[in-house]
Amino acid sequence: MNFKNCDSVLVTGASRGLGLQLVDTLASGGFSPGKIIATTRNPESAQKLQELADKHPNIHIITLDVVSQESIEKCAEEVGQLVQEDGLNCLINNAGINVVADFHSVTAEKMIENFHTNAVAPLMITKALLPLLKRAASRGEAGGSGRMGIQRAAVINMTSLLGSVELNWGERANNFKWYPYRTSKSALNMVSRCMAVDLEPDGILCMVIHPGWVRTDMGGSEAPLSPEESVSSILSVIGGLTEKDHGSFLNYTGEMLPW
Amino acid sequence: MNFKNCDSVLVTGASRGLGLQLVDTLASGGFSPGKIIATTRNPESAQKLQELADKHPNIHIITLDVVSQESIEKCAEEVGQLVQEDGLNCLINNAGINVVADFHSVTAEKMIENFHTNAVAPLMITKALLPLLKRAASRGEAGGSGRMGIQRAAVINMTSLLGSVELNWGERANNFKWYPYRTSKSALNMVSRCMAVDLEPDGILCMVIHPGWVRTDMGGSEAPLSPEESVSSILSVIGGLTEKDHGSFLNYTGEMLPW
Repeated sequence: MNFKNCDSVLVTGASRGLGLQLVDTLASGGFSPGKIIATTRNPESAQKLQELADKHPNIHIITLDVVSQESIEKCAEEVGQLVQEDGLNCLINNAGINVVADFHSVTAEKMIENFHTNAVAPLMITKALLPLLKRAASRGEAGGSGRMGIQRAAVINMTSLLGSVELNWGERANNFKWYPYRTSKSALNMVSRCMAVDLEPDGILCMVIHPGWVRTDMGGSEAPLSPEESVSSILSVIGGLTEKDHGSFLNYTGEMLPW
Repeated sequence: MNFKNCDSVLVTGASRGLGLQLVDTLASGGFSPGKIIATTRNPESAQKLQELADKHPNIHIITLDVVSQESIEKCAEEVGQLVQEDGLNCLINNAGINVVADFHSVTAEKMIENFHTNAVAPLMITKALLPLLKRAASRGEAGGSGRMGIQRAAVINMTSLLGSVELNWGERANNFKWYPYRTSKSALNMVSRCMAVDLEPDGILCMVIHPGWVRTDMGGSEAPLSPEESVSSILSVIGGLTEKDHGSFLNYTGEMLPW
């Protein structure tokens, strides 16, 4: 991981799973960002995150319910007070849910719930943090690192291979018939691609990454990757992003994936 | 168009635009399906559709509000009474809206509204009509037309080129910064691909088609295609679908499009 020129990172959904691991690895690394902002819906019940923050003073916990516009705006205000004129270098929209339902059990409500959290929330959060991302991007430019990357500003959306429409065929399709989850991730991919187009003039990089199949509460115990393995690989990819990765869909190993 | 072995077609959103034109062209063609079921939210205010139905006794107008589960179930019941043991050969999920919003004006509510109508409704409608589609597919099989196509049963979802994540880049992306619409169509593409996997064992074909940019209320007056041109081309593609097109994303001209 190469976060030495990245002063601030925000990770949503940091109370457990990949989010917690992202915060842990960022805080424990050789070049830890000056400010690691970890958001969670209920900081009081996020015990492991609290313990991490007690060990690492650069971890800042902020309350964020990603499906509440009021909460998003309050969070953005607190982040602004924290990063001040430096702005925010790296936003990792990691919070996500899996509302499991197949063709027979799926309902409109389940589809909308998963879509809201996984596809709409990253858009609304990015909108709210845009002034801070812009500030970091323009400071990075003035400082001579005019190319794109986390030394300036980047929005990283945690997607899934299951959001690939092209790959949803044959064996893969038969294994995971999750309508709300798959659809929400395809939608997130489109949201991210739209944002990449709109954030480019400000020098803000935007892309989506698939974390692999990981042994978290969501991934289950049969998954081949530990959270440490996945996150160490993800952070190495994020640390090395340049303008050629802008608008891309990458695997945690760094390879391009089909939409 | 080759609808001579297709006894029944249902078109949603048939009060205007492409939906109305689909019904018109189907009714006026040389081989008109025995039953053309045209759904609309408010039959009373769908004057042009009423006029068509007065001219063509094979047009049956049924009330359907695509975002109401109650309305979907009521509609499915009425369709069942209409088609009886023949089942339904071809469902065209055409109803759609464009909730125009760019990065700055987009809200969670606008995203969800467009997603519900354009991506969730076709799923819920297909679920409700599944017994009738299955019936038609198994009768077609018994009748010797065991391959896939509208002579057995097919679900056609009207998508858009703007739902292609891959093509949302460069010039194209800059011209249409419609977050809710683009996202809803990407989501519909995933829903359709999921359904293709699930409907295949019953011999029901499922695919998405881009109608081109058409001079309708939605497409505007600058669009290059007339509704007649688009629909004649769409119906020719639909009429010729076979199992090789199952799960595909086709242009109105019949070419494959990237996801």
